[in-house]
Amino acid sequence: MRDGYDAELADVSRILVAMAEAVRRAMSDATTALFTTDEALARRVIAADTVINEHHQQVEDSVYGLLARQAPVASDLRLLVTALHITADLERMGDLAKHVAKVGLRRHPLPAVPESLRRVVADMAAVADRIAAKIGTVLASPDAVDAATLALDDDEMDRLHEALFRILLGASWRDGVEPAVDGAMLARCYERYADHAVNAGRRMYFFVTGSVLHPVDPGADGLVAGEAP
Amino acid sequence: MRDGYDAELADVSRILVAMAEAVRRAMSDATTALFTTDEALARRVIAADTVINEHHQQVEDSVYGLLARQAPVASDLRLLVTALHITADLERMGDLAKHVAKVGLRRHPLPAVPESLRRVVADMAAVADRIAAKIGTVLASPDAVDAATLALDDDEMDRLHEALFRILLGASWRDGVEPAVDGAMLARCYERYADHAVNAGRRMYFFVTGSVLHPVDPGADGLVAGEAP
Repeated sequence: MRDGYDAELADVSRILVAMAEAVRRAMSDATTALFTTDEALARRVIAADTVINEHHQQVEDSVYGLLARQAPVASDLRLLVTALHITADLERMGDLAKHVAKVGLRRHPLPAVPESLRRVVADMAAVADRIAAKIGTVLASPDAVDAATLALDDDEMDRLHEALFRILLGASWRDGVEPAVDGAMLARCYERYADHAVNAGRRMYFFVTGSVLHPVDPGADGLVAGEAP
Repeated sequence: MRDGYDAELADVSRILVAMAEAVRRAMSDATTALFTTDEALARRVIAADTVINEHHQQVEDSVYGLLARQAPVASDLRLLVTALHITADLERMGDLAKHVAKVGLRRHPLPAVPESLRRVVADMAAVADRIAAKIGTVLASPDAVDAATLALDDDEMDRLHEALFRILLGASWRDGVEPAVDGAMLARCYERYADHAVNAGRRMYFFVTGSVLHPVDPGADGLVAGEAP
């Protein structure tokens, strides 16, 4: 019984790793498509989201199966429910990558990101990628130091989000309304993607080690920079 | 054993109903604060979100407790995991209401919503409120007809979202960049709130009746109107 349980749990882990890699590649490709106005690549990102959704369904089905058949004790139980949380975060990260790809197509062949925002959007994408990479790393070899730095990356994302809003709401903004709205939407996508990645990373850490790294904030709200407190 | 289980499950239901009411009121109050530039009301919405988060924690703790102590069979199990999904959706709806309240404060005492967008934003808020109301209704007296109309409301939200983008990206837009960005953010908040409400409503229906109303799309992605397909 226990052997079957362990084997099936290992399968769930493998699917989660595959999902983490897929959502990292999805956002990375979506960003490339955005900056190079590569329509074909953007469409591939959009199409590939169905694979991520299938993985998500596989994890949910496996976890329900394990819960039903094995009646696991408290610690295993918490582990299985953690897997449900992780897959939900990863699935949503895939959606956000798809969203970035779609913003990239909106005014194709015109670039969605004006020159004035390229640097800050590229920096946000880089932070998002770094956080996404850590999810896979944590699962492959849980390392508290690595996992703990997730929060620092998230702080950097917040700073970049503020910087982007200072540019597009600043007096020197000359790119008009549509690029401002697209820029704000892109910023929100990268920021929410990072929020989910931080949550998924912390939960991955728990999933692998059984110990809580930080209290996970279930509703880390990506606040728009410049908002009143 | 079963009696304790049923009583505790009834407690979970009660908390979910309370959360559904709280997130409905939160968004309704946030909208009022937005349209009347009522700073005190906006701050009350922001503060009240902690109560919603506490309820969320209570549901998670109760469900974990039930899972651990009762080793429920398959159908009860699915019910308990459904409660976890519902509370996650409701918790996020609370965050989005808080976000609307914060947008309302950004340029206080100036109104966050320019005259040109008041109608469509008010319509989006009305649809969001209607969907949120149905969650509570479904839980109180499960009605397939009521629950099935959730999807129709969601279609209306999509149409309003498109209408809003036509206004703020149209040639006659005279309100500048900041109100456009705020308008786009508000639209996204109402739309995501409605997405979560639809998911929560469907899952509520399952929670109460034990039958699936529709396949729930876990990652319904609120797409920005005007995006390429």
